[in-house]
Amino acid sequence: MGDEQGTSTLGTTEVPTHWYNVVADLPVPPPPPLHPGTHEPVGPDDLAPLFPPELIAQEVSAERMIAIPEPVREVYAQYRPSPLVRARRWEEKLGTGARIYYKYEGVSPAGSHKVNTSVPQAYYNALNGITKLTTETGAGQWGTALSYASALFGVECEVWQVGASYDTKPQRRTLIEVFGGRVHRSPSTMTEAGKAFAAGHPGSLGIAISEAVEVAAQDEATKYALGSVLNHVLLHQTVIGQEALAQLADAGEDGADLVVGCAGGGSNFAGLAFPFLGEKLAGRQAPRILAVEPASCPTLTRGEYRYDFGDTAGLTPLMKMHTLGHDFVPSPIHAGGLRYHGMAPLVSHVYAEGLIEATSLHQSECFAAAVEFARTQGVVPAPESSHALAQARREALAAAEAGTEPVIVVGLSGHGLLELGAYESYLGGRLEDDPLSDADLAAALAGVPVVAG
Amino acid sequence: MGDEQGTSTLGTTEVPTHWYNVVADLPVPPPPPLHPGTHEPVGPDDLAPLFPPELIAQEVSAERMIAIPEPVREVYAQYRPSPLVRARRWEEKLGTGARIYYKYEGVSPAGSHKVNTSVPQAYYNALNGITKLTTETGAGQWGTALSYASALFGVECEVWQVGASYDTKPQRRTLIEVFGGRVHRSPSTMTEAGKAFAAGHPGSLGIAISEAVEVAAQDEATKYALGSVLNHVLLHQTVIGQEALAQLADAGEDGADLVVGCAGGGSNFAGLAFPFLGEKLAGRQAPRILAVEPASCPTLTRGEYRYDFGDTAGLTPLMKMHTLGHDFVPSPIHAGGLRYHGMAPLVSHVYAEGLIEATSLHQSECFAAAVEFARTQGVVPAPESSHALAQARREALAAAEAGTEPVIVVGLSGHGLLELGAYESYLGGRLEDDPLSDADLAAALAGVPVVAG
Repeated sequence: MGDEQGTSTLGTTEVPTHWYNVVADLPVPPPPPLHPGTHEPVGPDDLAPLFPPELIAQEVSAERMIAIPEPVREVYAQYRPSPLVRARRWEEKLGTGARIYYKYEGVSPAGSHKVNTSVPQAYYNALNGITKLTTETGAGQWGTALSYASALFGVECEVWQVGASYDTKPQRRTLIEVFGGRVHRSPSTMTEAGKAFAAGHPGSLGIAISEAVEVAAQDEATKYALGSVLNHVLLHQTVIGQEALAQLADAGEDGADLVVGCAGGGSNFAGLAFPFLGEKLAGRQAPRILAVEPASCPTLTRGEYRYDFGDTAGLTPLMKMHTLGHDFVPSPIHAGGLRYHGMAPLVSHVYAEGLIEATSLHQSECFAAAVEFARTQGVVPAPESSHALAQARREALAAAEAGTEPVIVVGLSGHGLLELGAYESYLGGRLEDDPLSDADLAAALAGVPVVAG
Repeated sequence: MGDEQGTSTLGTTEVPTHWYNVVADLPVPPPPPLHPGTHEPVGPDDLAPLFPPELIAQEVSAERMIAIPEPVREVYAQYRPSPLVRARRWEEKLGTGARIYYKYEGVSPAGSHKVNTSVPQAYYNALNGITKLTTETGAGQWGTALSYASALFGVECEVWQVGASYDTKPQRRTLIEVFGGRVHRSPSTMTEAGKAFAAGHPGSLGIAISEAVEVAAQDEATKYALGSVLNHVLLHQTVIGQEALAQLADAGEDGADLVVGCAGGGSNFAGLAFPFLGEKLAGRQAPRILAVEPASCPTLTRGEYRYDFGDTAGLTPLMKMHTLGHDFVPSPIHAGGLRYHGMAPLVSHVYAEGLIEATSLHQSECFAAAVEFARTQGVVPAPESSHALAQARREALAAAEAGTEPVIVVGLSGHGLLELGAYESYLGGRLEDDPLSDADLAAALAGVPVVAG
């Protein structure tokens, strides 16, 4: 076992055979999505214009384990199991007795966990004769992941990228193009949803989603793919947590005391956390499970739990979730993947049920933790992931203070090699924190529709 | 074995215990380096101002296997063995019966093979009480690797980066700084070697080496670290080829028919090739071994095999090597790591002895192969590595034509995620080939000193 040598990758070479569906184990079922017009629960037929039948079935499934198709497992096997690494040098630097393990998704072809769902989404669409996928992307990790997966299964891929990222991160756009995808700046003039905004508007994930959905709805051979939020997306990400559980056991640990992940739309967090939550609900482990969000987009910690749209134009079903309001445009912090007004309904539900905790951090603390981590562990974290690291650091220091030795599992959702401009700002002392003000929050929430239930 | 699932990482989890020294097995010993003043063979004492004793001993050793210190193996174990992957999707795309395996060094903390030598170099220097290391960097991969390794062992790291790269690749500079190193644009005004050039000069590896060597020679607690060319650097890289041999056997292959790597200074090439050359010299395998260089810096294929300096200012010993002349400034192609006027003396020697082959390619062909590779295998290659891929592609297509099924092992020395600007130029049709003209070659060679022997 590599662990003998200090800090290496642990355990099995097996890729999970099934995705884990936490819905099967929840004491209270999650509230259904509602039709935006009728406010009645959405049925499979309502989703058919956007998604292929297999994904719709997964979206509403209550089965505990759902088989991963063999062609998807073959692609997974190119980069999975992702490493679970004991961060020994970082522990030493922190002077903590905590044992910190990080689950590193940056080894994927697109450099983040997003490939875990882009591959099955592209696969199921290709299986149904779909020739083009549309999507949105913020920081660009999802667009990259879908572009890569689409190339594998011979599907065209068209990406609306949030304007602010498009303008400042040409590398990410190039990477999407290297994999064969096409990129449009959002808001664009190609859609009604985009035309509603002035040229040069910095855009938001909500706007970009509206554009991609609008284009997909117009053509039978074109479907839409979402990189987070929805149940089937979270489901695909559960390979992360399942592997981590097995790898932790291989490392000789009885289980985790704390599982911590960053949460934007919620899929990375859920992918790591839900298999641990399953163990908790079954009474086999009792970890604290903690979601970390940016102080400038604190959906779980300061949003309201109510029905809202997933996009800005109101084209999606209404989902019950923690939201800051669907027309909220977050401050342009560097963790673009965490700049979303809502939170996955399943994550919102388990938070509302008290099954998980949440906290928020300023980005300057997160970058400080990320640089310390890079200098000790040799991995440059994505700005999103740095939120989880910074919280793990707090917990490890608290453990040192208290003289405890918890096992901390931290989700490192991707690498930050395409975000070095953000690191340059941090190292140059030019990074600003921009927490959400009460007034801005109230204004953003005012736009949320009133829905009974 | 992951191979059952199509394209995954193969084999062992063991890191080699020793480096392999090909000198022990060579039928003819390589010519010694000469003192730049006396033209007498250089002894260990001459190298003492620049390198710690362990590295000098390795530089002149004739031992076949040299033990890797445990602290170095511990760091290696964080990212080694690097994957050997069967490129099945690429093979399908090419319609070849060739079995193509790529050895992928991009998984290292700095994203390339350079970490394999930066770690032992930083370790041995720290062991000897050295508090600062100086070095040069071109594209930036070596500077990144040394910055990372220095952080691990508590040594300061100061990097002179070739001006052209410094100006156009801020991400790489930031990455060096994230790991804790300091970066200067070369030519700088901090050294006599740098002051010889006008402000804003684009620089070259030869100039940057002169600057770093000059600074190291002035202070007892400061030493110099070189990222390629020297025997001890090539030695450290042999973990690559040793692992590849073991992984190939694990994959059920009897051996390689062709081993192909890109060659700039020669360390990546030698690291992969020398263990295979050892098998060849011992009569156990009979692979063709092929070095690929850029048409704009064709050291092996068009340079002269004679004594020359390693740097521009003539501060280094004279080394017998294939050279374009030490004041040659290569065209600013994108594979910055291949822009060196000379070739490692050991690689030059085995080429002169007819033990390996060499060829050169234009960068446009290399980028085309790299994009095809990215779309099939999900890895964006460094521009340097793309030279090896493009040649492997030629060989695989030739095999399809001939109806043969060779086993091709190709060295993928690093990822290209910090070189996406080059990919953007390629995809946008703005990439230019710039082969070396006969007149420029003759002019460059005119400056090489005349040395007997």
